[in-house]
Amino acid sequence: MLALVIYDISQDKARKKVADHLLDLGLVRTQYSVFLGTVDKNRLDELVLFAESQLDATDKLYVIPVQRDDLSAARVVGLGFDEQLVTDEILTKVI
Amino acid sequence: MLALVIYDISQDKARKKVADHLLDLGLVRTQYSVFLGTVDKNRLDELVLFAESQLDATDKLYVIPVQRDDLSAARVVGLGFDEQLVTDEILTKVI
Repeated sequence: MLALVIYDISQDKARKKVADHLLDLGLVRTQYSVFLGTVDKNRLDELVLFAESQLDATDKLYVIPVQRDDLSAARVVGLGFDEQLVTDEILTKVI
Repeated sequence: MLALVIYDISQDKARKKVADHLLDLGLVRTQYSVFLGTVDKNRLDELVLFAESQLDATDKLYVIPVQRDDLSAARVVGLGFDEQLVTDEILTKVI
C-alpha cells in the first residue's frame, strides 16, 4: 500500500535509526520527518515493531495509508513534494 | 473532505499565522506541524492562498486528502493521534 509515515522523535540516534529503516524500506523522504512510499503489510508490521523499540514515551510515529488518487489531488504550497520525485520515483514504484 | 495538513515553516510568525488559520478552519493539531480535519473545497482554496502569502522560498505545506477508512487503518506508535481526539472530536466532525 501507499503510505505516509510521519514521526516526531526527540532523540537524534533513534530518529536516525527510524529514518534509515524507512529509507531501507524504499520510502522517499519528502520533508524532514515525512516519508512516502509503498510498503507491504509484513514490512509495515516490522516497521511498527522497530519503531516501538526505538521511540521513547513522548515520541510518535504514524503510518497513514493514502490512495494514489488522493495523493494526486494533494495541494502543495512551496517546494512540497519534489515533483520529479513524485512523478518519477514514487509513482513508478506505486504502479 | 478529510485532510491531513503538514507544514515545514521556518519563521515563527508565519508558522503561528498558518497554525491559527488551520485551527480556525476547525482542524485539530495532532502533532507540532500536523493537522487533521475536514475542510471543504472553498476553504481549502482559501487556505492554499493564505499559505502562499505566508511561506518563504524554502517552506512547504501539503494538504493531503485522506479517506476515513484509511485513517482508521492508520498505525500509530507512541501517543500518536490523541485517541480521544480522533474518536470524539475528529470522527464526529467527519461523519
